[in-house]
Amino acid sequence: MGKKHKKDKGKKSTTKAGKGRVNKEIPNEDGQLVEVDFAKPLGGFTDELRIEKGFSLAEFDPSSTPGFAGDKDDGKQALAAAKDEFSDLLERLHAGSTAGSQDAILLVVQGMDTSGKGGIMRHVVSINPQNVNATAFKAPSKEEQAHDFLWRIEKALPEPGQFGVFDRSHYEDVLIVRVHDLVPEEEWSTRYAKINAFERRVAGSGTTIIKVMMHISKDEQKERLQERLDRPDKYYKYNPGDVDERQYWDAYMEAYQVALDKCSTVKAPWHVIPADRKWYARLAVQQLVLEALRGMRLEWPAADFDVEAEKARLADS
Amino acid sequence: MGKKHKKDKGKKSTTKAGKGRVNKEIPNEDGQLVEVDFAKPLGGFTDELRIEKGFSLAEFDPSSTPGFAGDKDDGKQALAAAKDEFSDLLERLHAGSTAGSQDAILLVVQGMDTSGKGGIMRHVVSINPQNVNATAFKAPSKEEQAHDFLWRIEKALPEPGQFGVFDRSHYEDVLIVRVHDLVPEEEWSTRYAKINAFERRVAGSGTTIIKVMMHISKDEQKERLQERLDRPDKYYKYNPGDVDERQYWDAYMEAYQVALDKCSTVKAPWHVIPADRKWYARLAVQQLVLEALRGMRLEWPAADFDVEAEKARLADS
Repeated sequence: MGKKHKKDKGKKSTTKAGKGRVNKEIPNEDGQLVEVDFAKPLGGFTDELRIEKGFSLAEFDPSSTPGFAGDKDDGKQALAAAKDEFSDLLERLHAGSTAGSQDAILLVVQGMDTSGKGGIMRHVVSINPQNVNATAFKAPSKEEQAHDFLWRIEKALPEPGQFGVFDRSHYEDVLIVRVHDLVPEEEWSTRYAKINAFERRVAGSGTTIIKVMMHISKDEQKERLQERLDRPDKYYKYNPGDVDERQYWDAYMEAYQVALDKCSTVKAPWHVIPADRKWYARLAVQQLVLEALRGMRLEWPAADFDVEAEKARLADS
Repeated sequence: MGKKHKKDKGKKSTTKAGKGRVNKEIPNEDGQLVEVDFAKPLGGFTDELRIEKGFSLAEFDPSSTPGFAGDKDDGKQALAAAKDEFSDLLERLHAGSTAGSQDAILLVVQGMDTSGKGGIMRHVVSINPQNVNATAFKAPSKEEQAHDFLWRIEKALPEPGQFGVFDRSHYEDVLIVRVHDLVPEEEWSTRYAKINAFERRVAGSGTTIIKVMMHISKDEQKERLQERLDRPDKYYKYNPGDVDERQYWDAYMEAYQVALDKCSTVKAPWHVIPADRKWYARLAVQQLVLEALRGMRLEWPAADFDVEAEKARLADS
């Protein structure tokens, strides 16, 4: 995409309503300067990032910033500006569940090592821990291996009112498992259909599913692994196996492409997030979830008690 | 405590190191103006808030702000300023566990309805969800009731490297249970000793335990319940039973006093947090956890691989 990154810091709005917000003039698609208030909803990330039939991972630029014309500072600011709305919508989602709503939301995060999954957790999901149900799926335990591959996934699904987050997921069972033939092909090849049926059932029970692939380039991964070897505070994240896995990069990309092709459905679409720029990937994932939450038209539940009578009782207490 | 709240906004530091930080002159205990940089560690909350033998809840002022001389704006700023250090220390705690450390931390949050437990979750605990294990304990399910009262608590303990948070806890089993005699007295009266033995074992396994009681006044609770009846976005938090429970306020305070007396131990001390001012309570709980984390002297683990050899392998990959 190669958007120009302007370096000016924008002008502080001095009106009362805009206090603390920063408006900025950024070029639109025609190159005209347009003032943008990053505290206002951005919108449009879902349309930009949801993949369509014929999508090709190989032709997708991991350093692009679709749907956002600002630079890194703007992106960080937009991320921070959306936190209050995000928190408010998650509270509404939870509140609805106390009145019987079955609505929930599930974010599935996949990506190669160093693609920024942890950053999504720290910078996007670190909100309302009461309403968030985040699960990191590691290599399956013996108990998990003794069950069907969806057994541990089922147990981690969000309850009504919750924001569920999967850091890796059942897709590992058609990614690393496929690349390394950890189970026979006649087994893993049946899993795409099983995943679609599973996700259809989950969506049917009231859970909005958003799947994101954090897509980095092989060169960017090299730089990020290099950083882990250069900085003692990053050593603990480094695993010599990560370098071995780089030999299989093309096989992984092929496995991702197949998963995207076979498992992007109307009720559980895949989105590919260009992730070479961490700030953009974080903003994009946040905005995808926000757009889904807005689309749910979440209202505060009505009182299930007599408000005036309770006021009188409270006054006497 | 009745500290004076100055209204001036402080002066922005213009040095590079202080960029974005606000220094402020506030009066010290002798009334002299002292410049404070809220981005620097505050310290001292543990000493101020950990209860000592003879502590009396009835004599404690829920509107005081021990250990902090600033006002609401200062408090919010200090809370925000500490987030990076908090996040860094939690990452170190986690990193240590990947190298075999058994260290973990557990924050137990108790308090009357509306005392601000939810605010602690949203404003203090909403950090690094990968390393946080937060559990809200509701009225026990039938399955939980069929077990010893500590059964569900045991299952929710943090693993090595985690920051565990209990929103309510096993103390409900000597609070609401005692006030309403939900089990016979000969049963609940044995629980204090069981709790102490349990917490001693947990601390012995490497978990630092911090217990906080969010202490509000009965009048402040009335105002907060009133707000839930005045605002449609708060109706869902209101429960008519909350007003009924106000009749038992004194019995609850007595039950809290006994729990504080019997279960404040060297390895699992109780802290009483004046909670009539939400901003102070949040800051105080954050700082208690921070002070504990600092005391753990968490170092990044050494590389368990040959760094130079890995750099060479990565370069070739």
